[in-house]
Amino acid sequence: MLFLGNIDPELQLDVLQKVERPGLVACDTMNFWINGKRDALWKVLENVDVLIINDGEARALGQDSNLVKVAKLVLSRGPKHLIIKRGEYGALMFNEKQIFGTPAFPLEDVRDPTGAGDTFAGGFLGYLTATGNRSPEAMKQAMIFGSVMASFTVESFSLDRLRILDYKEVQERFREFKRLTHFEDIQ
Amino acid sequence: MLFLGNIDPELQLDVLQKVERPGLVACDTMNFWINGKRDALWKVLENVDVLIINDGEARALGQDSNLVKVAKLVLSRGPKHLIIKRGEYGALMFNEKQIFGTPAFPLEDVRDPTGAGDTFAGGFLGYLTATGNRSPEAMKQAMIFGSVMASFTVESFSLDRLRILDYKEVQERFREFKRLTHFEDIQ
Repeated sequence: MLFLGNIDPELQLDVLQKVERPGLVACDTMNFWINGKRDALWKVLENVDVLIINDGEARALGQDSNLVKVAKLVLSRGPKHLIIKRGEYGALMFNEKQIFGTPAFPLEDVRDPTGAGDTFAGGFLGYLTATGNRSPEAMKQAMIFGSVMASFTVESFSLDRLRILDYKEVQERFREFKRLTHFEDIQ
Repeated sequence: MLFLGNIDPELQLDVLQKVERPGLVACDTMNFWINGKRDALWKVLENVDVLIINDGEARALGQDSNLVKVAKLVLSRGPKHLIIKRGEYGALMFNEKQIFGTPAFPLEDVRDPTGAGDTFAGGFLGYLTATGNRSPEAMKQAMIFGSVMASFTVESFSLDRLRILDYKEVQERFREFKRLTHFEDIQ
């Protein structure tokens, strides 16, 4: 699995060419590259499976305020999955089969949001790596797993909360996410 | 059922005193009253079951940026349920038993967001009225029902979309909401 962090798209391309094709290529970027190196970035995206960006970046990349339209464009240019992070509001995932959305976990004590998006990406990719499963269901679980990890990261400064995190706490918060979002069908 | 629309809290109080105690009292308000008639508003809320406001209003009312803390305060002052509308990001519901959250339905064509919040409230209260059910599960379904109705309203101007809406479309979008948000437990 290869995660192309937020660097110059030309360097991302260079990295891509230097590694043997990984099982999954994920990619992050930012407005600076979207506006300044658009062509190189689209070239990177041709070889990317999962693009993970925030909503402002998605709108800048797609040059459209409507995220569904942006997703259609991005999915037509290479990525099989577009994940849009929305900070305290949660995240959306678009692919050919589905749209999946989750709110962020409501926390009473948020100490420091720094790194929440990166922790989300790490949790998302870590879950897929650990399970080896890429089914639509596993992709959704990975979205929640990433949201769970991000919700812990913001509870303290730097990596402090992750450093003392127990897997049982992760499982418990995953279950809390289910209670937070699940509902029964109507008649 | 009584829905106290967004008017002067002193008028809301007056209305409350003029009707026999309804089965459910819901209430809307706005920053103008929150900042200008805070005491009267808190007095209204003592007699309110469901407060339905947006996130900016919630933060102004609770005088805190953290919505979980705001919810604790509001729930201690009368309302049994606090619903926080977040526009394109969805909605949260806080009560003693649970927090429930849903993203908004991602739409490719949004014509006019005017009235989305009011349509949400109407759908929410209409669902509770129609079913007569106030269980925690029914409250969650009402949240989704309100979100479904709001998602239709923004597809066209004024009430145009609601005027031609078929109940089968409502049911189908409710099911789409389930596909949008549901996921399976992890091991």
